[in-house]
Amino acid sequence: MFHIFFLLPLLLSTSYASVNDFCVADLKSPDSPAGYPCKPPAKVTTHDFVYAGLAAEGSTSNIINAAVTPAFVAQFPGLNGLGLSAARLDIAPGGVIPLHTHPGASELLIVTEGLVTVGFIASDNSVYVKKLSKGQLFILPQGLLHFQLSYGKSKAVAYAVFSSSNPGLQILDFALFASNFSSSLITQTTFLDPEQVKKLKSVLGGSG
Amino acid sequence: MFHIFFLLPLLLSTSYASVNDFCVADLKSPDSPAGYPCKPPAKVTTHDFVYAGLAAEGSTSNIINAAVTPAFVAQFPGLNGLGLSAARLDIAPGGVIPLHTHPGASELLIVTEGLVTVGFIASDNSVYVKKLSKGQLFILPQGLLHFQLSYGKSKAVAYAVFSSSNPGLQILDFALFASNFSSSLITQTTFLDPEQVKKLKSVLGGSG
Amino acid sequence: MFHIFFLLPLLLSTSYASVNDFCVADLKSPDSPAGYPCKPPAKVTTHDFVYAGLAAEGSTSNIINAAVTPAFVAQFPGLNGLGLSAARLDIAPGGVIPLHTHPGASELLIVTEGLVTVGFIASDNSVYVKKLSKGQLFILPQGLLHFQLSYGKSKAVAYAVFSSSNPGLQILDFALFASNFSSSLITQTTFLDPEQVKKLKSVLGGSG
Amino acid sequence: MFHIFFLLPLLLSTSYASVNDFCVADLKSPDSPAGYPCKPPAKVTTHDFVYAGLAAEGSTSNIINAAVTPAFVAQFPGLNGLGLSAARLDIAPGGVIPLHTHPGASELLIVTEGLVTVGFIASDNSVYVKKLSKGQLFILPQGLLHFQLSYGKSKAVAYAVFSSSNPGLQILDFALFASNFSSSLITQTTFLDPEQVKKLKSVLGGSG
Amino acid sequence: MFHIFFLLPLLLSTSYASVNDFCVADLKSPDSPAGYPCKPPAKVTTHDFVYAGLAAEGSTSNIINAAVTPAFVAQFPGLNGLGLSAARLDIAPGGVIPLHTHPGASELLIVTEGLVTVGFIASDNSVYVKKLSKGQLFILPQGLLHFQLSYGKSKAVAYAVFSSSNPGLQILDFALFASNFSSSLITQTTFLDPEQVKKLKSVLGGSG
Amino acid sequence: MFHIFFLLPLLLSTSYASVNDFCVADLKSPDSPAGYPCKPPAKVTTHDFVYAGLAAEGSTSNIINAAVTPAFVAQFPGLNGLGLSAARLDIAPGGVIPLHTHPGASELLIVTEGLVTVGFIASDNSVYVKKLSKGQLFILPQGLLHFQLSYGKSKAVAYAVFSSSNPGLQILDFALFASNFSSSLITQTTFLDPEQVKKLKSVLGGSG
Repeated sequence: MFHIFFLLPLLLSTSYASVNDFCVADLKSPDSPAGYPCKPPAKVTTHDFVYAGLAAEGSTSNIINAAVTPAFVAQFPGLNGLGLSAARLDIAPGGVIPLHTHPGASELLIVTEGLVTVGFIASDNSVYVKKLSKGQLFILPQGLLHFQLSYGKSKAVAYAVFSSSNPGLQILDFALFASNFSSSLITQTTFLDPEQVKKLKSVLGGSG
Repeated sequence: MFHIFFLLPLLLSTSYASVNDFCVADLKSPDSPAGYPCKPPAKVTTHDFVYAGLAAEGSTSNIINAAVTPAFVAQFPGLNGLGLSAARLDIAPGGVIPLHTHPGASELLIVTEGLVTVGFIASDNSVYVKKLSKGQLFILPQGLLHFQLSYGKSKAVAYAVFSSSNPGLQILDFALFASNFSSSLITQTTFLDPEQVKKLKSVLGGSG
Repeated sequence: MFHIFFLLPLLLSTSYASVNDFCVADLKSPDSPAGYPCKPPAKVTTHDFVYAGLAAEGSTSNIINAAVTPAFVAQFPGLNGLGLSAARLDIAPGGVIPLHTHPGASELLIVTEGLVTVGFIASDNSVYVKKLSKGQLFILPQGLLHFQLSYGKSKAVAYAVFSSSNPGLQILDFALFASNFSSSLITQTTFLDPEQVKKLKSVLGGSG
Repeated sequence: MFHIFFLLPLLLSTSYASVNDFCVADLKSPDSPAGYPCKPPAKVTTHDFVYAGLAAEGSTSNIINAAVTPAFVAQFPGLNGLGLSAARLDIAPGGVIPLHTHPGASELLIVTEGLVTVGFIASDNSVYVKKLSKGQLFILPQGLLHFQLSYGKSKAVAYAVFSSSNPGLQILDFALFASNFSSSLITQTTFLDPEQVKKLKSVLGGSG
Repeated sequence: MFHIFFLLPLLLSTSYASVNDFCVADLKSPDSPAGYPCKPPAKVTTHDFVYAGLAAEGSTSNIINAAVTPAFVAQFPGLNGLGLSAARLDIAPGGVIPLHTHPGASELLIVTEGLVTVGFIASDNSVYVKKLSKGQLFILPQGLLHFQLSYGKSKAVAYAVFSSSNPGLQILDFALFASNFSSSLITQTTFLDPEQVKKLKSVLGGSG
Repeated sequence: MFHIFFLLPLLLSTSYASVNDFCVADLKSPDSPAGYPCKPPAKVTTHDFVYAGLAAEGSTSNIINAAVTPAFVAQFPGLNGLGLSAARLDIAPGGVIPLHTHPGASELLIVTEGLVTVGFIASDNSVYVKKLSKGQLFILPQGLLHFQLSYGKSKAVAYAVFSSSNPGLQILDFALFASNFSSSLITQTTFLDPEQVKKLKSVLGGSG
């Protein structure tokens, strides 16, 4: 490289400044099927790539003795369009993340503390259940019913990581019994007894 | 589930309200390569997921004795970003949907009334033609020239379903003879005779 | 076009024969994340693009008074890789397609006979329900719990079309009560009473 | 970096050797919707990433005074799965690449010699035509009818680059008049006169 | 649901068994651009969805005082086609994961122990660096140079999660100085001095 | 076609005008993960599909005796969403395009003048180098370090074509030595000597 000390005209024009390596979400603008519009590049700072909201323990003083703390694009705008998001699971002894699905993503579960039983049900009604300990991984294919629960005597912590920045979360019991899905339609579209439906709606706050 | 009657703090924060299971098109905003921006979630109603525009028969009193009634994203905004759209085909006896392509989607044809001949031509110039009756399906791979015509004595109805919410539609004769594609360029880029071009431009309204 | 009558050497080499406009599934070879390997092009015939299996009425003499007849890639190999598939729904009066999800696709519902109530529950537990009549369309976003039922006095027929050649189907009650998902895990991961679980397992044939 | 002179155990296991930066096509195995299976990594050489087949001028001694020489995955296996391919266009004075579509890709045209008129017709029958000179680029959106012709007194050369390793090519006149698409179906599905069809079939070799 | 106790013919045929909710990699078959062929569904067990290889600490007794232990599809076949993978980073005090890129994926970093400095350089040469503590997340956009190092007095552990089951890993210094990239080409294509290149090749084992 | 001379009501409603065959970028609106919003269709002209900015030779009077002139979406808005872009490489004798990556695209190189040596380094540190002459093609897989240099006595010209309308460009030496990446972090995350780093920062203008 002979001319190394002669820094002449720039190799490339400044137009490269517009290359979009990333697209930090502007959450105040409307979403689109591919994600949010990008924040102006000039306003992007290191802060946009960091999220500290999963550092604190979620409160497990609730009906399920567990907490799900999301770091989806709505919480962590730097994820926008990059095909990744996460959630922290805190599960007290005896706690459970009830049966749920993520309509738009597969999930990779990483246990970082305690003992976690994870399981899912496939389309052919096969059931896959596994007891995991610290450091073990489990992959949950997209859109299938699954759960996590703590099987140890101390609390468990796990990270769920998703293949979308906006994976969605549909909790079965909440969809049925905490919504305004009418009791009549529930008994027509499931095999549940009306008494069971009535009882759970009263517990979970559903109407209709 | 011991604590079932003690509904304590919510499992999840309200931030989940922003999860985008769907993205109903805001057709007044500019389109993008992935579709339209989403209508604000708070304004979405059941109405956005329904489309009644294909319930009525299309008029076949025209040059082709047939009608194509689209339910693309422009007509049915709830399709936005979901990779699906449809069209209703009404074909009177002797009617025909002339040779055309969909630049951005494959098509699944479902015959629901009458008798339909469908066919397409592949890149290697192979021709695939089939006479279909009620209830039969035919798959038309993306971007290839194809047609549908009624071969029975009564009218035919079929639904064409597409693998995009905005599949496009390029009708061969309209592209050539109902446009301002100049006669000179047509004869240069096809093997058609100038007289044929002139005649069809006069029929279909082309200029240039 | 002066030289039109002198057909000289071919414009293009025969190598174009290998262009893959389509990829009819070779179902005897292993599947892959993108679909099945392609049947040799020389063996593809018109027959590969046709499917007649939805022309016949499905039997509704069963517990749900309804039938789902699939035309997924396993039944209709021509769909492979083209991002589309279908199913025929036959619903006798009072019949119902119970709550279910498609883990890998959105669904466009087209009612072609009778009266159908369709509904889905979104991630935020909003419920969208609509009574449809012949010719109406309804879009069901990917991965969410939904159902169809007949609300008229005569049978209903509808086509469900999917944005994948292999959309999957997880029927909620079957996943829970017709599988070997243990009663203990069901009661831990839902709020259902053990008696309800026991009863439905006995009805639907589940074990564990 | 204190320990720079003490090269200790390898940072990473040899399992990284299986990372697939690329997937050179094994053309002897069946294709799939996502492309061909990969050649074993151990057999990949620099030669797999090079293609010299576009270096030679294509013969323009034919009915269109032009030649299209493809470098698709079938000719250049290193392109497999990488979303790119190319073709060389040689167009003698007065020559033309007739109206055609690429069912599976957009095209970027780069003129490297001579003068080229390029044009396409959009779904709404708008026509976009432009005379290009050396070094100019033109973008042709996926699946639309387009053409290229030489408008100068010397030959023209251009490279067409595609957004797929297997873009497909459907030449309008060949699809209609060099295939076994029956004359009866052609006149039914276009507005062409039977005499015109008969004449062009005789020129281009079609049957049926 | 009147007929609940009369379990009649099955709702659906057994053909649903072929629905591919997942596609566990058959690593003995050739890879493809979309991933490996699927293991036969009948041979899939719960074990295929679990990976324990990240539970053990990686050895940091090496030149970088750090270890990267991958859980890519080659190690964890259940990830195949699901758009996710992971790696465990162990970084002793003073250790560093040197500058590297992942050619095919974005990375979400989750610190689970200790203190980690992470940084990346964007296309416009902007530098984003952040000191992270336990529980904090950082998103690294696809394909950009980045690094992680321990800035605390005790070892750090982090999980890197990727938006592909096969993200790739190109370590800058290894690409330059542990390969057979010739010294002549290195000095021509970087601004490095020949003495520097020679020294680092001797340290890292490069040739040429 | 009996009724050919009676052009009756239009086959299709005007709603087709909104079909988006293309989406010319409105560069004044914010970008999104899928590209820019579309310019209003009514304002699109032929000019939007043409780019003349690569017709002129780039100046090679600089430190690398070479120039890269981009035709990315920021320069050529018609490319938006179509999965293609290009750049012109001018390389004087002895000139070099230094080691760089494109984070978001594979590259197809087409040599149109002179002699070009091209090479890339794979994830497993294999090196692939090839001397190309006019008309030869080389494919560079996404995200890997690569270079181009002129090995002849006259200048070389090549077109690089990319599988994205916004491929990105990270030049290794500029990322390290023309940025504000601190010398301390450079020496920690590479094996480079502090003196080398200091020297190159002074040449290339880096700080920190």
